[in-house]
Amino acid sequence: MSLIIILSHPQLPENIGAVARVMLNFNLRRLRLINPPPDFLNEKSRALAAGAEVLLEEAEVFDSLPAAVADLTYLYGTTSNEREMIKQYASPRVAMATLHDHSPITTGILFGPERTGLTNEDLTMCQTIITIPVNPGFSSLNLAQAVAIIGYEWLQHSLEMPNLLHTGQTQLATQQQIQAFLADLEDRLDRAKFWRVPHKKPTMWRNLRNIFTRLDLTEQEIRTLRGMLDSLDRR
Amino acid sequence: MSLIIILSHPQLPENIGAVARVMLNFNLRRLRLINPPPDFLNEKSRALAAGAEVLLEEAEVFDSLPAAVADLTYLYGTTSNEREMIKQYASPRVAMATLHDHSPITTGILFGPERTGLTNEDLTMCQTIITIPVNPGFSSLNLAQAVAIIGYEWLQHSLEMPNLLHTGQTQLATQQQIQAFLADLEDRLDRAKFWRVPHKKPTMWRNLRNIFTRLDLTEQEIRTLRGMLDSLDRR
Repeated sequence: MSLIIILSHPQLPENIGAVARVMLNFNLRRLRLINPPPDFLNEKSRALAAGAEVLLEEAEVFDSLPAAVADLTYLYGTTSNEREMIKQYASPRVAMATLHDHSPITTGILFGPERTGLTNEDLTMCQTIITIPVNPGFSSLNLAQAVAIIGYEWLQHSLEMPNLLHTGQTQLATQQQIQAFLADLEDRLDRAKFWRVPHKKPTMWRNLRNIFTRLDLTEQEIRTLRGMLDSLDRR
Repeated sequence: MSLIIILSHPQLPENIGAVARVMLNFNLRRLRLINPPPDFLNEKSRALAAGAEVLLEEAEVFDSLPAAVADLTYLYGTTSNEREMIKQYASPRVAMATLHDHSPITTGILFGPERTGLTNEDLTMCQTIITIPVNPGFSSLNLAQAVAIIGYEWLQHSLEMPNLLHTGQTQLATQQQIQAFLADLEDRLDRAKFWRVPHKKPTMWRNLRNIFTRLDLTEQEIRTLRGMLDSLDRR
């Protein structure tokens, strides 16, 4: 079981450094950055990393969310309040307990930019949303604090549970396979003039994608769905 | 049930600001500072508080640990690794669950200076030590991160449990009453030449105090113990 922390458009190098420090505190080592500031490996971030600079040096940098999550099986998004979307929500505790249940898969936890958090578009790509319970009157958590809570729950569960290796491989689809399927679906629906009123497409398409990302599809199921679409298309 | 965060000799105003922010995130509002830097309410700490400046403005400042905890019933100390002391240890989760169990008492959670953490002397005054589980190879948590973990567990339990008000008052002794009893005991032992080898007194006395702070003494029990000492003294 491998857990990757992904920061989407982090704004301040010092926050990235603080994230690296607290990741290593809780034994998380894999960091991905989507469009970080170009100077993210500077004096400030190194100072805040306080001994965990190696995580900054080994961080993988991407220029888009799909690229950053292509090889993952699960993707969790984090918010400090619930959004109005038909999505699975989990507390940090439940989410981390679930992670330790399905072994040898790779999971990403996605954190949004400091000022705004994740967009609804970002969240549409996530199977589950982790909501950190906070004071509703003062809900804006510092980025590294949010990573701390996730890391704390992660380490708690690694200490509590043996890391069971399910050898009967589940073969869940990767994010790349799911996104390729969705791109294909969107293309077919465009050609079929499915949306009717064009300005409603963004919302309708988001709702549709949320259905498919909620499914934990296997590779075989994606092939089956594609076959179904093929045969419908031919009529 | 009232929970007070106490920072002993915090070094950097910005860390105090970050603590204020995360306290308010998790609905904690009472902050005490023991010998903070004189300029702790400066631009940096206000910037890091990010909307929680009121906690800094209302923080109570003390010049010693005994003064800062005199009116508390329970005192927890925090460390990121276990010390070799005969003490009760609890995880943040268990400690916060316990707190919500005994209502209307006032409890303090004590955090040490950034660089060194709490001293063994400090911990001797605590009934229980909360150990935050971390990577043993990289265990130094940022101060505000440590407060975040405690605040997170605190809020989790407030959300999970109704705050039962035990009306059958427990009348546990305050820290002041316990410390006064211990000062009296030390004085009597000095006069009785109990320590024999003077250089062993610090350790012997620490061990003795740990016995009494572990007891959750009531006011009545302290009166009983004093009576017992009186009658022994007279012989």
